[in-house]
Amino acid sequence: MAAMPQPAATSATVEFLRQKARLLRIHSLVTTTRAGSGHPTTCLSAADLVSVVFFHAMRFDPTRPDAPDADRFVLSKGHGAPLLYAALAEAGVFPVDRLATLRQFSSELEGHPTPLVPGVDAATGSLGQGLSVGAGLALAAKRLEKSTIRVYVLLGDGEMAEGNVWEAAAFAAHYGLDNLTAIVDVNGLGQSERTMYGHDVEAHRRRFEAAGWDAVSIDGHDIPAIVRALDHARALEGPARGRPQVIVARTEKGHGVSFLADKEGWHGKPLSKDDLPRALAELGPVPPVGEPDSRSYARRVGTAPATFPPLPPPEYALGQQVATREAYGRALARLAAVNPRLVAVDGDVKNSTFAEYLEKAHADRFFQGYIAEQNMVSVGVGLAARGYTPFLASFACFLTRAYDQVRMAAISRSHIKLCGSHCGVSIGEDGPSQMGLEDLAMFRAIPGATVLYPSDAVSADRLTEALARLPGIGYVRTTRPKTPVLYSADEKFSVPGFKVLREGPHDRVAIIAAGITLHEALKAHSELAAQGLAARVIDLYCVKPVDAEGLASQLRAAGGRVVTVEDHFAEGGLGEAVFAALATQGVSLTAARRLAVSGVPHSGTPEELLDAFGISARHIAAAARALL
Amino acid sequence: MAAMPQPAATSATVEFLRQKARLLRIHSLVTTTRAGSGHPTTCLSAADLVSVVFFHAMRFDPTRPDAPDADRFVLSKGHGAPLLYAALAEAGVFPVDRLATLRQFSSELEGHPTPLVPGVDAATGSLGQGLSVGAGLALAAKRLEKSTIRVYVLLGDGEMAEGNVWEAAAFAAHYGLDNLTAIVDVNGLGQSERTMYGHDVEAHRRRFEAAGWDAVSIDGHDIPAIVRALDHARALEGPARGRPQVIVARTEKGHGVSFLADKEGWHGKPLSKDDLPRALAELGPVPPVGEPDSRSYARRVGTAPATFPPLPPPEYALGQQVATREAYGRALARLAAVNPRLVAVDGDVKNSTFAEYLEKAHADRFFQGYIAEQNMVSVGVGLAARGYTPFLASFACFLTRAYDQVRMAAISRSHIKLCGSHCGVSIGEDGPSQMGLEDLAMFRAIPGATVLYPSDAVSADRLTEALARLPGIGYVRTTRPKTPVLYSADEKFSVPGFKVLREGPHDRVAIIAAGITLHEALKAHSELAAQGLAARVIDLYCVKPVDAEGLASQLRAAGGRVVTVEDHFAEGGLGEAVFAALATQGVSLTAARRLAVSGVPHSGTPEELLDAFGISARHIAAAARALL
Repeated sequence: MAAMPQPAATSATVEFLRQKARLLRIHSLVTTTRAGSGHPTTCLSAADLVSVVFFHAMRFDPTRPDAPDADRFVLSKGHGAPLLYAALAEAGVFPVDRLATLRQFSSELEGHPTPLVPGVDAATGSLGQGLSVGAGLALAAKRLEKSTIRVYVLLGDGEMAEGNVWEAAAFAAHYGLDNLTAIVDVNGLGQSERTMYGHDVEAHRRRFEAAGWDAVSIDGHDIPAIVRALDHARALEGPARGRPQVIVARTEKGHGVSFLADKEGWHGKPLSKDDLPRALAELGPVPPVGEPDSRSYARRVGTAPATFPPLPPPEYALGQQVATREAYGRALARLAAVNPRLVAVDGDVKNSTFAEYLEKAHADRFFQGYIAEQNMVSVGVGLAARGYTPFLASFACFLTRAYDQVRMAAISRSHIKLCGSHCGVSIGEDGPSQMGLEDLAMFRAIPGATVLYPSDAVSADRLTEALARLPGIGYVRTTRPKTPVLYSADEKFSVPGFKVLREGPHDRVAIIAAGITLHEALKAHSELAAQGLAARVIDLYCVKPVDAEGLASQLRAAGGRVVTVEDHFAEGGLGEAVFAALATQGVSLTAARRLAVSGVPHSGTPEELLDAFGISARHIAAAARALL
Repeated sequence: MAAMPQPAATSATVEFLRQKARLLRIHSLVTTTRAGSGHPTTCLSAADLVSVVFFHAMRFDPTRPDAPDADRFVLSKGHGAPLLYAALAEAGVFPVDRLATLRQFSSELEGHPTPLVPGVDAATGSLGQGLSVGAGLALAAKRLEKSTIRVYVLLGDGEMAEGNVWEAAAFAAHYGLDNLTAIVDVNGLGQSERTMYGHDVEAHRRRFEAAGWDAVSIDGHDIPAIVRALDHARALEGPARGRPQVIVARTEKGHGVSFLADKEGWHGKPLSKDDLPRALAELGPVPPVGEPDSRSYARRVGTAPATFPPLPPPEYALGQQVATREAYGRALARLAAVNPRLVAVDGDVKNSTFAEYLEKAHADRFFQGYIAEQNMVSVGVGLAARGYTPFLASFACFLTRAYDQVRMAAISRSHIKLCGSHCGVSIGEDGPSQMGLEDLAMFRAIPGATVLYPSDAVSADRLTEALARLPGIGYVRTTRPKTPVLYSADEKFSVPGFKVLREGPHDRVAIIAAGITLHEALKAHSELAAQGLAARVIDLYCVKPVDAEGLASQLRAAGGRVVTVEDHFAEGGLGEAVFAALATQGVSLTAARRLAVSGVPHSGTPEELLDAFGISARHIAAAARALL
């Protein structure tokens, strides 16, 4: 605590908060026993902290917990969900009787929080992500909205081992997010044993302080101390101005119940129906329990991002050599001009992904996130929860760093849009560590995601615009080398969809490609045509969802013979998307070849590598011939 | 620097090291200009540091740089590869004339280091992973080998924003790795702009100190200061004992060349052929350049992990209810008894993954990594580089956190083995954040990986053993609920392979499943049989590699009709593996259905969820009927 004296809380306030904490503990125990699963002891450690946050510090109208002027609360330690739900119910967001539906299939009160629950901005439960989400919310409030809302994030001490927390800590300090308060519930017990630092709150405090935070440590069961610490945060006085604030609180897991308090072996275990009364007896009078409330209080989630007027066609000429990554960057800047909600977070690669075009045009909506992809994605989730449309870009391969964060973004029903540049072996000399060869597999396996893979500047521009309008997670894959413009500037690209670039009445094989391999496919087409073999060439720019019916009819027209070719590993990529679509459409393939990268690639020139890994024009033509 | 005085380096030593640094700078400039790409300025900032590490601090025989008693060097800032190669060449590991092959397809000297290069333990180039690899090497040396080797890790300041670095920093301090020295090259310039902290070396030093390290800051171009700091690290005197040591070095990117030094806009750009002589002129006499050495100096990599005698069959009885995750844990303990090289790192979930059986049996080979999956995986890569076979386990969904580290492990040709427990919706009430539904897609897209998915305790045991013997990345997917034992204890499981559990001469459809859905498929088989529909049931326990030829002949025998069913998202999973295998085997499918999870799941009971997401026996039987 800084030297600045704070007014003491009145004894009535303290007693009120103590009673609320008592009720939160009771609800946490009762609902998890009823559900037969859950994490009650982690709720008990944080009950006093949450009581003071919800019933003293936070400013929000419980009938409108998601209003733009409502303070935000992020439960980073998502397994404390019963405690959060209890606090929302006690605050009046929904009836206390709804708590009895915890973890039921019909209830929005799931095992870990999701934005189906009013007042919840993002799904948590994969640890260590909440502080980034909170930083995104606080960044939006402070830098984009000039709003005075405050953001509270409750973390567990176990999750302090996650590097994502330290990415967020550095980011929040860098942006001076003094509207952000983190509270660390140091109960000293992880899932399977004591945490790395046990009850050494100073170890945690020192690390936050070194990261530039205003950091205090307190007893997390001392209500007046919690009040003082949170008042200090809100007052932003003294040394805290311009800095985020953290309260490191020493607590006991299972606090309030003698046979649970600071005991190992209770993580993730509800009390039995026999033990529950013994525990409740220690907590004092239990309020009467009503019938479970079977109405849903679920929020509407997953609606589309902010709308904006149509963009004019881009200014690219047929045959012009432009990298799709550059067209992506130019599209961002074009979009930002008509969509004031478009923002971007960078991972110190803006001059490679060309997100720098956005920064040059609209520096106020461009945030440098430095080399921290996990934080970049979860800050994006926070920004999206405030109604922005964040575009997040890095090399495709480095987005693997944030796969868990993208996964959680989907559970958050978030609208973040990602761009992965430098895909495939076609990047050349930098070698395998810089080649995105699993990104299609990764993003295809995100529920509801749209996965786009443009081959030229026009499609890159139009598909980036499409992403900005589509709900859910969106991904666009861009290529390092320049490729010739294939489409006229006014071409339309439906999602799902594909383009047939070469076709004839006597086609005997279809070649399906996207990105750099589409250009190889076009070369192969010429080679085959010279040999009298008619091939159909399809640009599958929309890899997910696949227009399965449309593809099926193309394949039938090409004799059921297909070659797929992609600058990606064979697994989970374009080829598998095609084969699965055809199989489930009942297309009986006559013969098929999947050309894709296999094994660990190597440095070399792009041309050398496309050929060495079997996805060049020569290999495509050979595969097509082999099918006949 | 601690108060302890160090003997000053002699002026002859200093001059020798300065000359070596000068040569390293020259090689870095010459080779990148010759290659036409690369990152010379990042080499120039670290040249003095690397000179003192290689030619003063490290103890190794250049003719045997990978001998067990050789000190280790990890270039975490992998884009400094030309500098590393120059140091290896100047040390005599390979001829200086080999440097001219930098970034060529035929050369082991790729754009970023891989273990093809002698003396390199792990691929780097995805930033922020090297300190974890170094911690794994140091952990092996200190705790498993009682060796006195020292491990040096060179980091860039840009990568200090990666959370993985802080996971590693906490881990190394926790394990008291005083045989580990980190050196941070604070040149203050990232790829696209100044780093978050610029030249504020104290900001970096404070954070390491707060994490429990012995931390000093120095001028990274002051050779005597570097010598003193590294001597201090090796001496382990005073406050450093029992703590890892970091040297935070203030440097200039491009140091030594006036028009490059501390200039923005030079990241990742070689000098032109015109600029090179101007730069070299500033660096003093250039040694004569020979013909490029076209011999390969590549190390043999990717050989199998440590061998061990066969295990006796496990003691499970047919029909016994055992979770595959528990059988995995028991298998680990059984394997450790016969394989002294088997070790494990946990992510504080040992009581869920059942890795705790190993800890109970062999505590000395079990390391708690706490909730830090990225570090867990890269520490595993370090352990594997010392000849151990590390098993790394977490919930399948949380392995997404370490996808980049697994990707880099594959480029490292590492033998790490991973187990993902709690796969699919069948975990039930904990909800979507805890469900691994993309892990098959993720691991299938790792080159050379083996992906196994047992359905019962016997196969879980035998497949865990198989993984321990196989080269490359291995993954085993385990299930939370108990399932009945299907196989007799002496059953053999080939990789690749599958088992046909139900078959008859008149089968009209094949149902392909694994894990929990195999049990649903068996129920569906009974239901269909009662209706007079003969179905073949296949346990595809080996999802990668798929025995495509074997499956094709099964499918032909079942009339070309197939239902795949998996507790995984549709994309990149078992179904797509099957369809791709059949398509490329030329199997003409009569009709196919892919049953898989779609959309974001929800909390509920396992049975409720299997049914709600369309992968229960009822849905399988309906899909089979619909194909006819």
